[in-house]
Amino acid sequence: MKKIKPSTLPGFLELLPNEQIQFDYIKEIIKKNYEKYGFLPLDTPVLEKSEVLLAKGGGETEKQVYKIEKGSTDMCMRFDLTVPLARYVVEHYSKLQFPFRRYQIGKVYRGEKAQRGRFREFYQADIDIIGNNSLSILNDAEIPSIIYSIFTELNIGEFQIMLNNRRLLNGYFNGLGIEDPKYVLRSIDKLKKIGKAGVNEELKRQNINDEKLQKINELIEITGTNDEILKSLDKLESDSEEFKTGLKELKDVIKYIRLFGVDDKNIQIDLSITRGLDYYTGTVYETFLTEHPEIGSICSGGRYDNLASNYTDMQLPGVGISIGLSRLYYQLKAANLLKDYKKSLSEVIILPMEGLIDYAIILSEKLRKQSINTLCYTEIKHKMGKKFKYADELNIPYAIVIGEDEIEQELYSLKDMQTGTQQKMSLEEIVKTIKSI
Amino acid sequence: MKKIKPSTLPGFLELLPNEQIQFDYIKEIIKKNYEKYGFLPLDTPVLEKSEVLLAKGGGETEKQVYKIEKGSTDMCMRFDLTVPLARYVVEHYSKLQFPFRRYQIGKVYRGEKAQRGRFREFYQADIDIIGNNSLSILNDAEIPSIIYSIFTELNIGEFQIMLNNRRLLNGYFNGLGIEDPKYVLRSIDKLKKIGKAGVNEELKRQNINDEKLQKINELIEITGTNDEILKSLDKLESDSEEFKTGLKELKDVIKYIRLFGVDDKNIQIDLSITRGLDYYTGTVYETFLTEHPEIGSICSGGRYDNLASNYTDMQLPGVGISIGLSRLYYQLKAANLLKDYKKSLSEVIILPMEGLIDYAIILSEKLRKQSINTLCYTEIKHKMGKKFKYADELNIPYAIVIGEDEIEQELYSLKDMQTGTQQKMSLEEIVKTIKSI
Repeated sequence: MKKIKPSTLPGFLELLPNEQIQFDYIKEIIKKNYEKYGFLPLDTPVLEKSEVLLAKGGGETEKQVYKIEKGSTDMCMRFDLTVPLARYVVEHYSKLQFPFRRYQIGKVYRGEKAQRGRFREFYQADIDIIGNNSLSILNDAEIPSIIYSIFTELNIGEFQIMLNNRRLLNGYFNGLGIEDPKYVLRSIDKLKKIGKAGVNEELKRQNINDEKLQKINELIEITGTNDEILKSLDKLESDSEEFKTGLKELKDVIKYIRLFGVDDKNIQIDLSITRGLDYYTGTVYETFLTEHPEIGSICSGGRYDNLASNYTDMQLPGVGISIGLSRLYYQLKAANLLKDYKKSLSEVIILPMEGLIDYAIILSEKLRKQSINTLCYTEIKHKMGKKFKYADELNIPYAIVIGEDEIEQELYSLKDMQTGTQQKMSLEEIVKTIKSI
Repeated sequence: MKKIKPSTLPGFLELLPNEQIQFDYIKEIIKKNYEKYGFLPLDTPVLEKSEVLLAKGGGETEKQVYKIEKGSTDMCMRFDLTVPLARYVVEHYSKLQFPFRRYQIGKVYRGEKAQRGRFREFYQADIDIIGNNSLSILNDAEIPSIIYSIFTELNIGEFQIMLNNRRLLNGYFNGLGIEDPKYVLRSIDKLKKIGKAGVNEELKRQNINDEKLQKINELIEITGTNDEILKSLDKLESDSEEFKTGLKELKDVIKYIRLFGVDDKNIQIDLSITRGLDYYTGTVYETFLTEHPEIGSICSGGRYDNLASNYTDMQLPGVGISIGLSRLYYQLKAANLLKDYKKSLSEVIILPMEGLIDYAIILSEKLRKQSINTLCYTEIKHKMGKKFKYADELNIPYAIVIGEDEIEQELYSLKDMQTGTQQKMSLEEIVKTIKSI
């Protein structure tokens, strides 16, 4: 029979089991923290009606989307979790409680050009809080607190959540007489990349006059601690109400973030953070690993005035954040930050001598009853060396060897696979030893 | 602006948050048990190359599959988790340890006719153990033990894992001179539906003579306890070696299942279980809820000689089982078996009086540090009645009200949302009360 060469599609991440264990560990920490803050789980279909998913229309998204026609149905694979959320909230509106706090961790699909660290199928891990007509600024402070909690627990080095407020920026530029400041924001967003001179050059090319340029520079030159920045912003002259509202929001967010217990060193106002999307209207976030700036933002989001304007006239303001989980995993692994993560879910493996499998099975069930993940080696005819190699390759921390002696004495040899030391122990002692790590 | 009516595709299951919590709970129990028995997690892409996924070719599957063409790439959404496993094992063969024990819980896609309880996107939760050249019969006993562990923990009433052996059946029928007994198996599989008379009628139509028919009936009439059935099979006259091997396997499986601690009442040999697929070669399983036979088998699988013959000449025997999770959830809910499952992940909600939000935030963080899932109601301007209604609708078991009194005394009012009783407690007592449930 002709054999087909098995291979995955280019741009599709697929992991080996020990990598998958580390990936799932990250995913689990994110999930657990989302739940700790009272978010509800959601799991919308991967396929949606094209007219619903592409209601906004146009742009890069439509080109990248995976379309499926089957019979008379025109479908798409979701390209993010936000559009499905908008659809969900409007479709199930009457059955939801607002503020509606949901998390969703799922795969999304974009037929992008395949390149290193970019995937066509990738996980996003999103939280959003959706209000009905209004939504307190407190939520803008809670979101980064959850991110803080996650990245602290992930233990992948120093990180900073950078935050800013689009209302403040827009108001300030409006106050200077710039009616549609989108292109100013776009230039400012490049500050770290092209420097102040570069930003000024770009703005000059947009016919921003010297007086305005000076005022813009007064804003983007503001740096320092959060309190210093807020003080400098206070001194900034602007008669824009929008600016004042934005500044008030920023102050509130900083105040409440501290109440949520976030360490000041992990949070930093950065007035050059603007976020590319038109979508955001107030607070915006980006998150960076201090020692790995090359990785870029590992988690971004912000506040928006209206989640679902394509589906409804209702005002549904929200605030949310998204962790690009697949990309994050890939980058953390490349930066060698996962080396201390466990690679085995099994806590112990039982390796019986030939003929003693019955005892092995009985012992394995006793260990499982004590909530210990136990792998029982079932290929009784394999040689002991092969069995140990198996345990080793699977990174299982402990092995129990069962021989005649062990059965007579009701003591088992527990081998620490890392140190190689072996000790005879009772079942009780084994459980205690394994649980202690 | 014209609004698009938001709706999901027909045949796609989408849950409300309280339903999703119950769904995820079932999924989590399955996952936890798979890990308890030393299975490795896998997460293959939803999209695969068409030539790989459809290597077997033909049949209903190909008609139902969701195909995508993008550029010059011909892709399909996976329709099960077994074909991707076969592809994975051959593609990554040199990096895997055998026996390779993996679980995968993921969505699969079939464009079937939409009908009650059938979905076009649905979760499967699979385990398989793949051997390199050979695989011990012990694995055929471990698989149902895991299923036993899962359904015991799910606590959805009495269940029975029915098992049989295809080698035994094929051998017996071969011994009667029936060379290709597939159609006999197909008839026998209908025994419960059409009765013995129905089966006999079907077989007569296939030109099975009376002598053979009598021998077939001798087999399918065998009932009783597992030990009784094994004894009757011993007495059955057959000179087929295949039959003898199958019977030996069945005896071993029963012996080891008992060693794995499975209660005898939960396991039953049933000689009419044959499983539709050509794929299986030895042990086969189906699982039924005793009080809900109308639900049909909730978990099926078996032993196969060769996982990946479309991709390789290597001999990769395996044994596995699959839980149709979406269908299971749907049926359990319809049968009202989930009514006692928790509907809230949040263990407590904090409802501050206006102006006291700061204390609420601080308290919520203290509770989270004690690993208590805590929702802090942030819409400070809402009325207290609205806040309580929110807590109630979300099925959160406890609410803490924060008023001036509470802050002065450092005691908080903990309200049991089910009984309505309210009690002033210290933080310590609150943690203890919440953790005690």
